[in-house]
Amino acid sequence: MKIDIIISADDIRESKIKNKIVVVIDMFRATSVIVTALSNGCKEVIPYLTIEETLEHAEKLKREDYILGGERRAIKIEGFDLSNSPLEYEEAIIKGKTLLMTTTNGTKTLTKLTLAKRILIGAMINAKSVAEKLINVNGDVIIVNAGTSGNFSMDDYICSGYIINEMLKYDENLELTDIAKTANMIYEGNTNILSYIKEATHYLVMKSLKLDDDIEYCIKKSIIDIVPEYKDNKIK
Amino acid sequence: MKIDIIISADDIRESKIKNKIVVVIDMFRATSVIVTALSNGCKEVIPYLTIEETLEHAEKLKREDYILGGERRAIKIEGFDLSNSPLEYEEAIIKGKTLLMTTTNGTKTLTKLTLAKRILIGAMINAKSVAEKLINVNGDVIIVNAGTSGNFSMDDYICSGYIINEMLKYDENLELTDIAKTANMIYEGNTNILSYIKEATHYLVMKSLKLDDDIEYCIKKSIIDIVPEYKDNKIK
Repeated sequence: MKIDIIISADDIRESKIKNKIVVVIDMFRATSVIVTALSNGCKEVIPYLTIEETLEHAEKLKREDYILGGERRAIKIEGFDLSNSPLEYEEAIIKGKTLLMTTTNGTKTLTKLTLAKRILIGAMINAKSVAEKLINVNGDVIIVNAGTSGNFSMDDYICSGYIINEMLKYDENLELTDIAKTANMIYEGNTNILSYIKEATHYLVMKSLKLDDDIEYCIKKSIIDIVPEYKDNKIK
Repeated sequence: MKIDIIISADDIRESKIKNKIVVVIDMFRATSVIVTALSNGCKEVIPYLTIEETLEHAEKLKREDYILGGERRAIKIEGFDLSNSPLEYEEAIIKGKTLLMTTTNGTKTLTKLTLAKRILIGAMINAKSVAEKLINVNGDVIIVNAGTSGNFSMDDYICSGYIINEMLKYDENLELTDIAKTANMIYEGNTNILSYIKEATHYLVMKSLKLDDDIEYCIKKSIIDIVPEYKDNKIK
């Protein structure tokens, strides 16, 4: 089993993901929101590239059946129910609902992966379960980091390293590319996560927006054991 | 001054390099060859994408005026004078000559950089001088890793980290992207170089070809103080 990493949404090339098992990571915060919402009983998550598409789809549903969630520039979208903070996606709010979601990096990434064989959703909070699932699937794995504004993002990268590190516990003979090996090393040198990501551009933006509670939550390791999958434009 | 890294020749995008100061790194071994040859009195290096182009140009020159150098699959090309081993480019052989060169990753990278403002040639062996030069140029810097077969390569990445580390000694307020910060961290955690690159795919290929002397030479730090520049299809 070969494990590779794509470092940002802008670096996705069809040849690299075609027929591969893909894990999408946008730990600050889209994939942390998706994992949390589904774990709290959300019926399904439908990701959209634009605010307009999201609202168009909402018009077709009964108001009590959906929640509008997401961000632009890390801030809640006007008229939406929830921001991109996973802490807002409580059971009382999200249970049984469809989450219509649009974010800057995460949903953009998902829409570029149509040629993949399977698309799983990963974050720090469900990493162990992602690793277990990957070990049991048949095929090469590409961990796609959403990144930030088309660039490599330290937060998604160390999250990839953590998943790889967990996979190595099951099978130490995994074939890692150089970038996958390096992610694992970064994780091993920074198992507390914060010592590495405190330098991340995205982390500094979140700190400046006083999103400390979100940071604290998103770097928690493997507190949720579901692995959402994106299929037919829906995540379940 | 902003410092960024492109992780492989396949990831070069015009928008990222346009009007930037670019440093090309292919430390195993093309840029180590170029730096060594020019330091030993080579008149100029002309890089070509294909063997055919290289031979076509050779026909226009007197036989005593040029050397044919390069590799395919890390091995000397049939009919060429020298392989891609920097150790072969001794003063007695290369002084006053034009080096016509074609390699798998390094020369491919150079031909993709036409929109850059300046293109400098970097390796471990001239890293300090590259750092000094970059500190004194006016403009944002992109360190372009040739990589291996279009993929991220640990050797070029730690070499980028070493150059950045040296630049930080002159100016600790450089604006580093996440991938540049990570390269610096990898270097700081592996200043002996080998502890990191012994895992590199490219390193393992070189070991299997018994190119130990080349490895030992290419990871020497800052033993040469020239910084070649690629301009008008020539490196001087």
